[in-house]
Amino acid sequence: MKKAHIVVLPGDGIGPEVASAGVAVLRAVAERFGHAFTFTEHAIGGDAIDRFGDPLPPQTRDALLACDAILLGAVGGPKWSDPAAKVRPEQGLLAMRKLLGVFANVRPLKLHPRTAALSPLKPDRTAGVDLVFIRELTGGIYFGAKTRSETDATDECRYSVEEVERVVRHAFELARTRRRKVTSVDKANVLETSRLWRSVATRVAADYPDVALEHQLVDSMAMHLLTHPADYDVIVTENMFGDILTDEASVLAGSLGLSPSASIGGPGAGVYEPIHGSAPDIAGQSIANPLGTILSAAMLLRHSLGLADEAATVEAAVDHVLEHATLTRDLGGTATTHAVTRAVLDAIQSKAEAA
Amino acid sequence: MKKAHIVVLPGDGIGPEVASAGVAVLRAVAERFGHAFTFTEHAIGGDAIDRFGDPLPPQTRDALLACDAILLGAVGGPKWSDPAAKVRPEQGLLAMRKLLGVFANVRPLKLHPRTAALSPLKPDRTAGVDLVFIRELTGGIYFGAKTRSETDATDECRYSVEEVERVVRHAFELARTRRRKVTSVDKANVLETSRLWRSVATRVAADYPDVALEHQLVDSMAMHLLTHPADYDVIVTENMFGDILTDEASVLAGSLGLSPSASIGGPGAGVYEPIHGSAPDIAGQSIANPLGTILSAAMLLRHSLGLADEAATVEAAVDHVLEHATLTRDLGGTATTHAVTRAVLDAIQSKAEAA
Ligand SMILES: [Mg+2]
Ligand SMILES: [Mg+2]
Repeated sequence: MKKAHIVVLPGDGIGPEVASAGVAVLRAVAERFGHAFTFTEHAIGGDAIDRFGDPLPPQTRDALLACDAILLGAVGGPKWSDPAAKVRPEQGLLAMRKLLGVFANVRPLKLHPRTAALSPLKPDRTAGVDLVFIRELTGGIYFGAKTRSETDATDECRYSVEEVERVVRHAFELARTRRRKVTSVDKANVLETSRLWRSVATRVAADYPDVALEHQLVDSMAMHLLTHPADYDVIVTENMFGDILTDEASVLAGSLGLSPSASIGGPGAGVYEPIHGSAPDIAGQSIANPLGTILSAAMLLRHSLGLADEAATVEAAVDHVLEHATLTRDLGGTATTHAVTRAVLDAIQSKAEAA
Repeated sequence: MKKAHIVVLPGDGIGPEVASAGVAVLRAVAERFGHAFTFTEHAIGGDAIDRFGDPLPPQTRDALLACDAILLGAVGGPKWSDPAAKVRPEQGLLAMRKLLGVFANVRPLKLHPRTAALSPLKPDRTAGVDLVFIRELTGGIYFGAKTRSETDATDECRYSVEEVERVVRHAFELARTRRRKVTSVDKANVLETSRLWRSVATRVAADYPDVALEHQLVDSMAMHLLTHPADYDVIVTENMFGDILTDEASVLAGSLGLSPSASIGGPGAGVYEPIHGSAPDIAGQSIANPLGTILSAAMLLRHSLGLADEAATVEAAVDHVLEHATLTRDLGGTATTHAVTRAVLDAIQSKAEAA
């Protein structure tokens, strides 16, 4: 029996609806497998600005530091996007990542045959795609020194050996649990930070003789993701390249509603959240797709709680739903958020009974 | 009658084969329309290293500064890619761009129905795609200051108001000859150089009230290129974003062999070249696709020589060939480089006779 305390951050827009689906699934897993999970909800983002004037209030910070894992809905919306605003919802996410020291953003991409019809790519290109992006989350040009004058602006991209090494090691460790192939993406023909990145990746690879390492330039990778995405297993890259490439890759799935993510690697808890946004236009209508959050909950089980069988049970339940159930509107169906969640819960239950 | 002197830089690999196809087309245009074009061939890249020990020898430099336009084949290959090598073929390209002061790389993307079958994207996504990328070519992180120590590396991204303004103006001028829409791509929510970029684009837009301006974040653009590429007309962006996005977009065409490009904007001549590389694996076999170079020659006619009707004639001839002729291997056909070039020449001739 595993005891775990999970902080739930519903956030904004459809965040509360999908977060509650994730919690329902985690409760079902706890019941079926005999674990003791406790949950507490805390404020983040626009909701936290409205209630506490702070996108990551102190009571949320305290809870984040005292839990085993974090499940997040979504953050942001037009209500808080006035450019003159002093605080913005997204600052809550950045503050949380900093507080927890997470440095690796993990985004799996696996295409289900039923949703392949929704992909802009032809089925022969998406068949067999099963890859994971690991994006470095704390360094690079997004966090570098900036200057601005009347006539010029600058941004500095900086990476240390240590920052590169820890995220690249993560990629190799993950690859060992998969198809044992790491693709490291850089722009080493032009950038000094990329040459550092490549030299560290090459050195770390020596510690993993059972894992193959290949280097790709970022512009080539942007092409290969469309021409032969099934060739990739674990793809690791720096912050900005990861931002661009993971968004490009997310389109392949046909709907953003299906894709989970994790931000992990720090001394504290990991954060698990769907890749989609808060979608304020459909909030409160119970038409949001809960599967991205439910698959994020599966990642939480695997990575933060070490419950691989339980994670696989959730993923199999989602696969079953994708094959047999009526889906939400983004996947061409008419089902509500509740109905899809119910179908996943039923599949988890019947799986448990069969076992 | 227009007189023009054109420098031809065959370069490496399949470069000489496709460049000679481009020259044949330009000669045919001159003959049909009564212009006087002269051509001189000069060395660049690996070929220039082999013959002169310099990827851009003095006699080539002199010729580049004295001509009206430049047609380039392709540069580079494994023969010259030893990392320990002192000079590399690509240095010839960079030196040429610097010498000519070109700052805008122009890449049109137009999908022909016959080649849509080769695109990784479904036909409903690629229908009606007709866009042009303008990539800033002289600034940004690729040319910024670099540092490297035992433990760290940095790259600086720098843009001046002047650098942004001249390339953005180019985009607006081009949009006026097209569908009057400019999409400016940046990462203004994070980068200071992008905020500078966005403020300049917004200011310049005021001088073009007949052209619509929209701003896109680079990661969103990487998605939109796959989900609704037909919505875009002129897309302008900084150097590295352009490098990644133009490569991503190039895949949509189904073959790199079809796409032309231009590097323009300086006080001197513009450079016109296919986007594909030197493809040493198929060099000398007369199976390279000449259409990317032939469409580059059409861009040369339009942009450097001001011959819009002649350019349109070449483009119509290529359209005709794409519809009716046997194509090269990369487009699923069996035709030789010569046969496809011959088909274009025939179409130019019959068009001229019909007129
Ligand atoms: Mg992004
Ligand atoms: Mg490139």
